Amino acid sequence: MRPIYLDNNATTRVDPEVVQAMLPFFADQFGNPSSAHAFGASVGAAVKKARRQLQALIGAAFDDEITFTSGGTESDNTAILSALEAMPNSTEIVTSAVEHPAVLTLCAHLEKTRRVKVHRIPVDRLGRLDLDAYIAALTPHVAIVSIMWANNETGVIFPVAKLAELAKEVGALFHTDAVQAVGKLPMDIKSTAIDMLSFSGHKLHGPKGIGALYVKRGVPFRSLIKGGHQEHGRRAGTENTPGIVGLGKATELAMKFMDDMTTRVKSLRDRLEGGILQRIPDTCVTGDPLERLPNTANISFEHVEGDGIPLLLSRVGIACSSGSACSSGSLEPSHVLSAMKTPHQAVRFSFARDNGEADVDRVFEVMPAILAKLRSAPGRRSADDVQSNSCLSRSRTGCHS
Amino acid sequence: MRPIYLDNNATTRVDPEVVQAMLPFFADQFGNPSSAHAFGASVGAAVKKARRQLQALIGAAFDDEITFTSGGTESDNTAILSALEAMPNSTEIVTSAVEHPAVLTLCAHLEKTRRVKVHRIPVDRLGRLDLDAYIAALTPHVAIVSIMWANNETGVIFPVAKLAELAKEVGALFHTDAVQAVGKLPMDIKSTAIDMLSFSGHKLHGPKGIGALYVKRGVPFRSLIKGGHQEHGRRAGTENTPGIVGLGKATELAMKFMDDMTTRVKSLRDRLEGGILQRIPDTCVTGDPLERLPNTANISFEHVEGDGIPLLLSRVGIACSSGSACSSGSLEPSHVLSAMKTPHQAVRFSFARDNGEADVDRVFEVMPAILAKLRSAPGRRSADDVQSNSCLSRSRTGCHS
Ligand SMILES: Cc1ncc(COP(=O)(O)O)c(C=O)c1O
Ligand SMILES: Cc1ncc(COP(=O)(O)O)c(C=O)c1O
Repeated sequence: MRPIYLDNNATTRVDPEVVQAMLPFFADQFGNPSSAHAFGASVGAAVKKARRQLQALIGAAFDDEITFTSGGTESDNTAILSALEAMPNSTEIVTSAVEHPAVLTLCAHLEKTRRVKVHRIPVDRLGRLDLDAYIAALTPHVAIVSIMWANNETGVIFPVAKLAELAKEVGALFHTDAVQAVGKLPMDIKSTAIDMLSFSGHKLHGPKGIGALYVKRGVPFRSLIKGGHQEHGRRAGTENTPGIVGLGKATELAMKFMDDMTTRVKSLRDRLEGGILQRIPDTCVTGDPLERLPNTANISFEHVEGDGIPLLLSRVGIACSSGSACSSGSLEPSHVLSAMKTPHQAVRFSFARDNGEADVDRVFEVMPAILAKLRSAPGRRSADDVQSNSCLSRSRTGCHS
Repeated sequence: MRPIYLDNNATTRVDPEVVQAMLPFFADQFGNPSSAHAFGASVGAAVKKARRQLQALIGAAFDDEITFTSGGTESDNTAILSALEAMPNSTEIVTSAVEHPAVLTLCAHLEKTRRVKVHRIPVDRLGRLDLDAYIAALTPHVAIVSIMWANNETGVIFPVAKLAELAKEVGALFHTDAVQAVGKLPMDIKSTAIDMLSFSGHKLHGPKGIGALYVKRGVPFRSLIKGGHQEHGRRAGTENTPGIVGLGKATELAMKFMDDMTTRVKSLRDRLEGGILQRIPDTCVTGDPLERLPNTANISFEHVEGDGIPLLLSRVGIACSSGSACSSGSLEPSHVLSAMKTPHQAVRFSFARDNGEADVDRVFEVMPAILAKLRSAPGRRSADDVQSNSCLSRSRTGCHS
């Protein structure tokens, strides 16, 4: 049976067109774009084209606002450290409790090793940011706000444009980790007060090991990786030209498939959610029903321990995850679901343009037996342990059956 | 006419076998190695294999001493910043005046923004490190020594094993930027006192955007890029699996071609040097005649201004460079040649396994006319301005003809 991949928030299949676009830059146009000779020059033009493709996808005003990095994590780290260095008199960071470790681990480290105070804004049971707490944390001491555009585990979307306006009022820079949002939501960054935005190639059918950081013109910036003058002095190191060209092509394709994402892919996701809730008792969909990525379903299965469902699904060739890839394998509960005060047996199904109806049908086919098996296991929790109000919608049989 | 590439110290052509090895990891085995399901697991095994291939090339004792990074610059930055953070009571850095900007730019920044003192050990006219100055700089205040294994512009090799022993005596960590040395010189790092070593894929026919940092077991280490637990917690961010697999294959091939590098490639380089000196008056080869990379020729042409030679060579399809790729295009003189007190009209020809006799013959064919043209240009310097004692060997007609 063909394996089914429903873990596109962890990483995506590189589009064959992206691979084709990259190929000439390995063994043919392999020059160093910083070289003055002909081998370098043609490659420099390809890098420029890619920068324009990224500019178009996020709606940046200028192509030089795009800096290529090695991925989302480097972009996130760069944005936060840059702001602290550029604004030495502001020593506070505002972030959310549900950020990716690329933000939270860095913040924890800064708190421990430097004179930095971190405000982690809580979320409610639907994963929505506590706006009052956010506003209360915004003072002139804040160097940077770093709040994600969309959450990787639940798909919940934060109102970043509005949050950026509020940050601006106290003179703080506003960064958003848009790793899960770019390519899934139309964007026009130039019409917002967002100062910096991170994204990553491999989440939108581009290659791994390449990402970008948008920095609005005029925003003070300090590079993280220092050396040669590459990327307008913003990111040293020989340019990953095949990666850059591949990411350029991936962003072009993401624009082309934006409608597919927001309609067909969304309806696949909705069908999966509806179908599971209908077929399996004591399940519920987690996260804000109104503001959610079109591709992400986070479903809680009550009376099931740990990673059981993803594990058994994997055995029948279906890939999905409990929480994020970074934390799977570990037995720690997801910090996102903990912040939402939901039970931890959630399963994330994340779709992409290469998924189809048959993938959803196959999940419906195998789920009842998997749940029957897991729920009959000895030692499972009792129903009352896992009552939760964080459900977006609930299976018909209700959570207390 | 087929273009001729003699700029392999700037970057190399990716070996077609490397591209083949990478290909399956884009659209087929595209999983996130941190994912628990089957899509992730197979990729994890490929990463492990690559780590072993790198271990073998540099002669590391354990495969977990290898951490994958985005390239040489990130590795260099990581090593130096890690040491400063791990040894907060030691605030001095010892380096050389001829390091790559990946080390020197960072050091200058640290000097300006932190309580860090940097010792830049000078070199003599042959590019050899001033050992007395080195020993004098070594005190218990030194957190880290960062001295390159081989210089990118001249190919001069520093005695890093001995330098590491000396650093150890004062309790300093020893890092070497081996970006130009790995794949060109046999190495057995476990038999040395070297604590950390950087290298980069694209300098040895591997892909751009991937590199590695060797950290000897037991050496205190602090990550630069923080986030998920990838790379044993040493480098956060979704692994660049095609890049890692490609670098693994590239290191395997580098071992296979090591004899070719140290014999055939070296003799191509030697023939080029001899032939130019014989044909063109007032030229000399720069750098230590005894300790030099087998592939690098750095040749000074007296009575020639600026970037003239590489420019005219490029017009007839031959790529080489003046100084390094990072500095070409700029009109600043090379900091390496300045430190050696040589005139600045040097041209670097750097060879690799894909070069052959015909490439050298073609250079011989075109050089006399190019030199005649440039030397007849009005406004060229007079001979006495450019007298130099830094020559390894000199054209028969002498420098003062
Ligand atoms: C000696 C040396 N160190 C470091 C680097 C930086 O490596 P990368 O450009 O892969 O970051 C280079 C090449 O550019 C180099 O020649
Ligand atoms: C929201 C979010 N931010 C950051 C990252 C880190 O991106 P990368 O793994 O490309 O460094 C990820 C994915 O891993 C993510 O989902």
